Amino acid sequence: MVRMARERTPLAEESLDTLVTVLDGIRLGGVDSRAELVARTGLGRGVVAGRVAELLDRGLVVEGETGPSTGGRPPRRLAFRGDAGHLLVADLGATSLDVAATTLDGQVLAHHAEPADIATGPDVCLGRVDELFEHLSMGPRRLPGRLWGVGISVPGPVEFGTGRPISPPIMPGWDGTPIRERFSTRWDAPVWVDNDVNTLALGEWRSGVAVGHRDVVVIKVGTGIGAGILAGGHLHRGAQGSAGDVGHIQVVEDAAIVCRCGNVGCLEALAGGAAIARQGREVAEDGRSPFLARVLHQTGDIDARDVARAADHGDPVAVSLLQVAGRRIGQVLASIVNFYNPSLVVVAGGVAQSGDQFLATIRETVYRRSLPLATRDLVLARSALGGMAGVLGASTMVADQLFRPEVLATWVHHGEPGPTAVGAPLPSGS
Amino acid sequence: MVRMARERTPLAEESLDTLVTVLDGIRLGGVDSRAELVARTGLGRGVVAGRVAELLDRGLVVEGETGPSTGGRPPRRLAFRGDAGHLLVADLGATSLDVAATTLDGQVLAHHAEPADIATGPDVCLGRVDELFEHLSMGPRRLPGRLWGVGISVPGPVEFGTGRPISPPIMPGWDGTPIRERFSTRWDAPVWVDNDVNTLALGEWRSGVAVGHRDVVVIKVGTGIGAGILAGGHLHRGAQGSAGDVGHIQVVEDAAIVCRCGNVGCLEALAGGAAIARQGREVAEDGRSPFLARVLHQTGDIDARDVARAADHGDPVAVSLLQVAGRRIGQVLASIVNFYNPSLVVVAGGVAQSGDQFLATIRETVYRRSLPLATRDLVLARSALGGMAGVLGASTMVADQLFRPEVLATWVHHGEPGPTAVGAPLPSGS
Repeated sequence: MVRMARERTPLAEESLDTLVTVLDGIRLGGVDSRAELVARTGLGRGVVAGRVAELLDRGLVVEGETGPSTGGRPPRRLAFRGDAGHLLVADLGATSLDVAATTLDGQVLAHHAEPADIATGPDVCLGRVDELFEHLSMGPRRLPGRLWGVGISVPGPVEFGTGRPISPPIMPGWDGTPIRERFSTRWDAPVWVDNDVNTLALGEWRSGVAVGHRDVVVIKVGTGIGAGILAGGHLHRGAQGSAGDVGHIQVVEDAAIVCRCGNVGCLEALAGGAAIARQGREVAEDGRSPFLARVLHQTGDIDARDVARAADHGDPVAVSLLQVAGRRIGQVLASIVNFYNPSLVVVAGGVAQSGDQFLATIRETVYRRSLPLATRDLVLARSALGGMAGVLGASTMVADQLFRPEVLATWVHHGEPGPTAVGAPLPSGS
Repeated sequence: MVRMARERTPLAEESLDTLVTVLDGIRLGGVDSRAELVARTGLGRGVVAGRVAELLDRGLVVEGETGPSTGGRPPRRLAFRGDAGHLLVADLGATSLDVAATTLDGQVLAHHAEPADIATGPDVCLGRVDELFEHLSMGPRRLPGRLWGVGISVPGPVEFGTGRPISPPIMPGWDGTPIRERFSTRWDAPVWVDNDVNTLALGEWRSGVAVGHRDVVVIKVGTGIGAGILAGGHLHRGAQGSAGDVGHIQVVEDAAIVCRCGNVGCLEALAGGAAIARQGREVAEDGRSPFLARVLHQTGDIDARDVARAADHGDPVAVSLLQVAGRRIGQVLASIVNFYNPSLVVVAGGVAQSGDQFLATIRETVYRRSLPLATRDLVLARSALGGMAGVLGASTMVADQLFRPEVLATWVHHGEPGPTAVGAPLPSGS
């Protein structure tokens, strides 16, 4: 069906908040009738009816089969139209690239993953994302509606308001890259860029192990180490969007190993995936770990997952390496638990997914070094979303931003349903 | 004027949220007309008129002189009635006790401060608070209205939902003390209990140096060390209310000094006021600091403020002591800045108030050890409220709790304006 652009009654500025309240009730709260919207939001019947009509008119909500009658005419059920448009998202890791097309409510329509090297710089990496987005858009399965938004996650600090990486330690050549502008010009849609652990935390919270929790820390031990933070059910990005940069917390004072950030003794330089891999190569080369020596002989290299596998096979040197790394991470997490008092700590990333030893050591250190009240009901768990966590998180981030009042205001008056990058400067708030 | 209890139209459950929206607009947002309330809240004219009538009827809002006309009948200005009742608050420090009577909007009506020792236990300390509350209530200046609420802050972790200290390291004998029940029975009013740094952070945010900031860490270096955290303009108490317990973060691994919490190497055991005082006594006794030796000779003891004063007078050993302590605190704050990315760090407590050396060392360490993005616009400042910060914070805490929908629901239907402890069990949420 082709929607015709036509005259609309302008929506008053102050009606946007209530429009979002009604939309969020349907989209996230599972409310499916006008009567329940009135009861849940405290808005008047007239206001609710008006906003629902607006949402039906814009194609964001659909009226389905009739629900149970409570006396009069049976009400028709309301539902969010996740397929009113689609999103394109990319999760850039230090050594991997995941792209996906999703609906507005996070259903994955198409997904592609491949190895990548973030150190090849923005031109190569983002050029490849463009190619893969092109493939997804042109694929055999037609994507629903127009492209409503693009989400990009990267393994480093991002100034969320501008969508630029700022001095990212493991992304050489990316400092200040205008990722948002690059994609919004190319794809004519609004673009949001965030740190990969922030989107990971959003994904776990909306559909993973963190559902129902309010104060959560998600720590990802990948090549580097970073954390995503939920405060009272909202993503805490911090004043400059750099919250969660725990990889560069100093854990020893005179480490000989200099971190990529330029400081010494950083957590990441001692316990990140790259550090574990380096230590694994050392004990493979000097023969202290027969298991890893075999892997090195067979594959020519050792990564952190190999060390975790060796530990699971009982290799004592690999167990010891992971224990030392786990204790360092546990030490920083204990500080974070004392400071932040989360109800849940999620450990994510390749090393954490592989073996039990690592998580056990982290858990033991956190419980030993935190105050009793902070750990009384603390849950320490593994990520539940595995490989899809990155793209699901990026999709959640874009949807959450699209339906904020300030962003809705930039496109809800257009004849065309859905936002556009042209003439719609994005607000810089979080 | 005696208000008569009379029949009221019951307020529907779902109207409480909008009642609070309207009240907060007047109480905190400075909105003084129904028309502006409609514009700011997006609520309908009828809803706003109804809620304002309700608030006028309950005596929470008063209609004052007329405002400027915009055509028709000139509107009458609305104002929150801070003197509809009064609050009693107490700020218990490790070595001090502050009590105050305030209005519902944080005007201090009477204030009293005296030395105290938290280690004398709950019976002695809370008995003294009762006596002082009695004095304030019976004082020459009649307090406005009824007593609407009581606020108590203590120097240790508190489970906010129940109002009980939980394993507080520097409060021997207080573990699990039912402070809320004790005062609500005695004073027939709702009672809230929180950690002293949480109330300090609230006070700085409502009327101190943190006004206008959203993500703030307030660290207090008193006898112990603790932090209060604001996340997006809300106090972050954490899952068990123990957020901010930074005094027991481990900063060295093999410290000979055992902390009061039982662990070794805690920040507080190395850089808290008690630790600085102990180090000051040592260098006074062995003559390394002539300045402190004189103070010890004159007064018989050394506290942390004496060490700060000695440093300000150029005593090199005192300067060195404060530099070492400042570096330890800076090291933990750098981790917190990396993790949390606040826009403002407030340093409070006696030592921080005394001299410049201490704050300078903390600042230098934080800037050296944090990532560039996190410190780009970071402000590191001293507390602005000084001695009144504790009671102002406790008063803010009580007012914020009194006017939450769940709490309003427990008393807004009574004939008598204002809450009562009897028959009004408090919700346990934060």
